[in-house]
Amino acid sequence: MGLIISVDIGGTQIRAALYRRDSLNALRVEKIKTLAEQPGVFQRLEGLVASIWPSDEKVDAIGLASPGPLDPHTGTIIATPNIKEWRNFPLGETLSEKFGVPVFMDNDANLACMGEWKYGAGQGHHNVLFLTISTGIGGGVIVHDRLLQGFHGLAAELGHVTILPDGPMCGCGKRGHIEALASGPAIVQYIREQVKAGRTSSLANLKNLTTRDVVEAARNGDLLALETMQRAGKYLGIAVANYLAIFDPSIVIFGGGVSQSGPVLFDAFHASLNETVFDPTYLKNLAFARAALGDDAGLLGALALATVSTPDH
Amino acid sequence: MGLIISVDIGGTQIRAALYRRDSLNALRVEKIKTLAEQPGVFQRLEGLVASIWPSDEKVDAIGLASPGPLDPHTGTIIATPNIKEWRNFPLGETLSEKFGVPVFMDNDANLACMGEWKYGAGQGHHNVLFLTISTGIGGGVIVHDRLLQGFHGLAAELGHVTILPDGPMCGCGKRGHIEALASGPAIVQYIREQVKAGRTSSLANLKNLTTRDVVEAARNGDLLALETMQRAGKYLGIAVANYLAIFDPSIVIFGGGVSQSGPVLFDAFHASLNETVFDPTYLKNLAFARAALGDDAGLLGALALATVSTPDH
Repeated sequence: MGLIISVDIGGTQIRAALYRRDSLNALRVEKIKTLAEQPGVFQRLEGLVASIWPSDEKVDAIGLASPGPLDPHTGTIIATPNIKEWRNFPLGETLSEKFGVPVFMDNDANLACMGEWKYGAGQGHHNVLFLTISTGIGGGVIVHDRLLQGFHGLAAELGHVTILPDGPMCGCGKRGHIEALASGPAIVQYIREQVKAGRTSSLANLKNLTTRDVVEAARNGDLLALETMQRAGKYLGIAVANYLAIFDPSIVIFGGGVSQSGPVLFDAFHASLNETVFDPTYLKNLAFARAALGDDAGLLGALALATVSTPDH
Repeated sequence: MGLIISVDIGGTQIRAALYRRDSLNALRVEKIKTLAEQPGVFQRLEGLVASIWPSDEKVDAIGLASPGPLDPHTGTIIATPNIKEWRNFPLGETLSEKFGVPVFMDNDANLACMGEWKYGAGQGHHNVLFLTISTGIGGGVIVHDRLLQGFHGLAAELGHVTILPDGPMCGCGKRGHIEALASGPAIVQYIREQVKAGRTSSLANLKNLTTRDVVEAARNGDLLALETMQRAGKYLGIAVANYLAIFDPSIVIFGGGVSQSGPVLFDAFHASLNETVFDPTYLKNLAFARAALGDDAGLLGALALATVSTPDH
């Protein structure tokens, strides 16, 4: 049984791990700093992979998770927010040539979804909706036991779907996306606007306001904070109702820091979902879960992708 | 090579056809009136299928298209707007027992999509978005060469997705669905509301107003009619922009009467789509097409489903 090497490219560090197919216990794990502003990221990545390459066993494939946008069909990094020198960079092909094995890659949200499906909260499900809610909202979808990738490899951008035309501006420059209504920055932004408009709040004078502060204040009875979390929950409910009508999954998995907000977010979410869902049948036996793989989601998602994409020798 | 029997259940008639696998020329076609209000629809359907059953060759499977909602996994009609006696009726199983062959079924919009993909406008595409716009808005999606069905078999209800919270009431009882903004009845309703509110229009005194009248008036320079079609086009553009970010298809196929409105609808549609699409890459090499199969979409979609679902003997 061959081995798989997984790589998770992050803004601050790049991690690589050596796995036996479908075993979650890494045989070796190494990491380096990304040093994204300095040239030679690829050479550092190459050295990292070489450092865990086995001397006596065959590697079937390399799986790789990277922030997008990227083209999983060609293995090209189109652009990544962190690594400036990687623009339209054929990362998969270059890495494949260096090591003589196929490279399979996708963006971090898609692979987190795939990891949760194969090894985490989504095991046993055939149709999975995954949403990660933090500084942005990312999505991944398993449709009939396969990762949804699409024609250009850009499917499942579930944070960038308009649900409130003429709504607040999203980080991407478009209006009314769910990311502009329910992500961490959207929550903080709404508090700031309301305070500016004269609303009182215990958060009014807080500098460097975070979603965690808002959640804490909401739990402590701050009305503006509670209303803000409920507003995010309401729109999240509308978005998920839409995704149920679109994908009809058997499980919805939430990842990311904002999804740890508890009842101040999720009470409003479920109320909104129940109110707006097209048909109650979608909710029948529908599971809700929190992402289970934590920091290893990228590595394990890349392992899952490489494993399903290559025959077992 | 075995034969396939296709059945298309409509509100006024039921059609059945005998095909050789993947040949579009029916060997036999018969139809009967549905007589939906009278009992015994199943017995009439059984007789219809028997009337085209071949005496000397093997039938591999029956494919069946019906208005939804239905469960394609179990072959159960949950409810159909026309045939009152079919509530939670195990149509697939009952038909399969009668004729001793497997029965594969799905709703008419999904199967129209499948038919277009296999035999019509979507041939050669692996990721297809199909929207039919008439009295309602129905959808179907091919993801990586497979019909999207979902956990309960209720996926791709693309007309019942909220894009304008607090918007107009949809026929289904929820607000702001694209069906409530761009279907035929939504267009007529908007004209009526605006006339009631005092707007002048050549349509003001027309009884039994239809979308065709609105399109005609828009072409003839009626400002309210034009604005109404542009409004429908605008929201349709937002909906399709969302579906690009969600599915990233290589082709968008439009069916249904409203999709024959021409530039008065589609100029505004494309302007809105170009403005709201998350990333211009989605539009790269994206094809737009009109449905090609016409009245045979149901029969051919059922043929496609039965063909891909059974091995060729």
